[in-house]
Amino acid sequence: MSNGAWSTPAQKSLRASELGPIAAFDADSTPGFDGDKSDGEALLTKRGEHFADLQELLYANGRSGDDRSVLLVLQGMDTAGKGGIVRHVGGLVDPQGLAITGFGKPTPEELSHDFLWRIRNALPAGGRIGIFDRSHYEDVLPVRVHNLVPQSEWEARYTVINDFERDLVDQGTTVVKCALVVSKDEQKARLAERLDRPDKYWKFNPGDIDERAYWDAYLEAYQAVFDRTDTDYAPWHIIPANRKWFSRLAICELLITALENLDLSWPPADFDVEEQKKRLAASE
Amino acid sequence: MSNGAWSTPAQKSLRASELGPIAAFDADSTPGFDGDKSDGEALLTKRGEHFADLQELLYANGRSGDDRSVLLVLQGMDTAGKGGIVRHVGGLVDPQGLAITGFGKPTPEELSHDFLWRIRNALPAGGRIGIFDRSHYEDVLPVRVHNLVPQSEWEARYTVINDFERDLVDQGTTVVKCALVVSKDEQKARLAERLDRPDKYWKFNPGDIDERAYWDAYLEAYQAVFDRTDTDYAPWHIIPANRKWFSRLAICELLITALENLDLSWPPADFDVEEQKKRLAASE
Repeated sequence: MSNGAWSTPAQKSLRASELGPIAAFDADSTPGFDGDKSDGEALLTKRGEHFADLQELLYANGRSGDDRSVLLVLQGMDTAGKGGIVRHVGGLVDPQGLAITGFGKPTPEELSHDFLWRIRNALPAGGRIGIFDRSHYEDVLPVRVHNLVPQSEWEARYTVINDFERDLVDQGTTVVKCALVVSKDEQKARLAERLDRPDKYWKFNPGDIDERAYWDAYLEAYQAVFDRTDTDYAPWHIIPANRKWFSRLAICELLITALENLDLSWPPADFDVEEQKKRLAASE
Repeated sequence: MSNGAWSTPAQKSLRASELGPIAAFDADSTPGFDGDKSDGEALLTKRGEHFADLQELLYANGRSGDDRSVLLVLQGMDTAGKGGIVRHVGGLVDPQGLAITGFGKPTPEELSHDFLWRIRNALPAGGRIGIFDRSHYEDVLPVRVHNLVPQSEWEARYTVINDFERDLVDQGTTVVKCALVVSKDEQKARLAERLDRPDKYWKFNPGDIDERAYWDAYLEAYQAVFDRTDTDYAPWHIIPANRKWFSRLAICELLITALENLDLSWPPADFDVEEQKKRLAASE
């Protein structure tokens, strides 16, 4: 029955611990949502306005000294649509209130520090929604798959990450972690499109084909991430991403829930309203 | 005759040197544009899509090593709508491609450096559109009006600014400077609205009323800015801002022109497309 609504809230239906092993995950599914593409797009338009209102409320509170923030952590294999989430979900709100950071291969300077150094430098200020396009999880995903550091080193990181996120949450940042999952066939189709369209060449990297050979190792590495870092204070959500309309709708919904849970209201005036009205009326 | 089109291109009709003295400026006017609010809004929707396409092209080139960028410098008195420009014009494009910085009262650290230090730190990387909400011009506007530094010091800054912007442009940044101008009455109405609506209290600052007493001194300071820093390489535009639909349309148009002048095309593949197609087809 298609009615364009969530039968189960996204933060429950997409929670990593609610879903089965990632190796068996259906990237075409729409867990918790009853509706098709046109239902989903219509709902996103509507919910996008609510999202924008909540973001303005967060920003207003930040400007008034509230240091709470929201951090969306996006992970996913190549072509899973992380950039599309930044554009189409981030694009729903005032860009002034966003702090977007993409994490690529670490630079020599970044490598000379511990792996969380560049992450700490990019954390959102109070009142902002931070978006990480890739994140500290790169240090237990490609780094693990290719053993870019010794196993003893990456093994230790899961605990370091949990401790780091615990601190973050304690300091007032709501952490929303989303892993976008495409199927191997869908990835192939999306890479083929990048090779067919000259306006998409810039998104193609020959290394993306090489990485396909490590697909199963990546699934294992993702499973370890979910098993070891899906905590109640910083939960992981698995976002089926073969249908872009769904992944956008789902992540918008997760951000709305995060913002609603902050239970924000408009900051009270820190001046005497009536007095200021009189002063203004008296000014030329 | 209202037909919803520009009779004179915005970069000409709004150029500071084309317009008369700022003290006589009509903040309700729509120089160069023949049309009313609904015409303007319809045109902004259409031009916004073109703007987004051009921004993606700039971003793609940036990712491919082109270090050119665009910098929008926004100045204007309180309530002139700078934040609305960031939200409604910046919001037309992929937020990933924006680098937005607001410059408030300088912090002690900023004051311990020369006045351009914080500006240099916020310049857009290649492929980005930077937006400065206030800028280095604060150092010759409130600073001049209130003599926050000795006159000999602020007097010297016009030349320093011109040299700085010359360097910026030489390094590949297109600089688009816009001064948003509201009338004194319109400002009063907008301040009154902030005092009438609890969801707007956070935008109100009692100091904004104090600044109204310096209105004429500000106009003088703006005039000096136009007289001394409206250069062909980094031109000033005066944006009448009593009608928000017009200021948004005008600035979108100025950014489109800046991007079109870069004469961008999609970056060519830096790999052999046919070879990669074969590799992809052969991958599982």
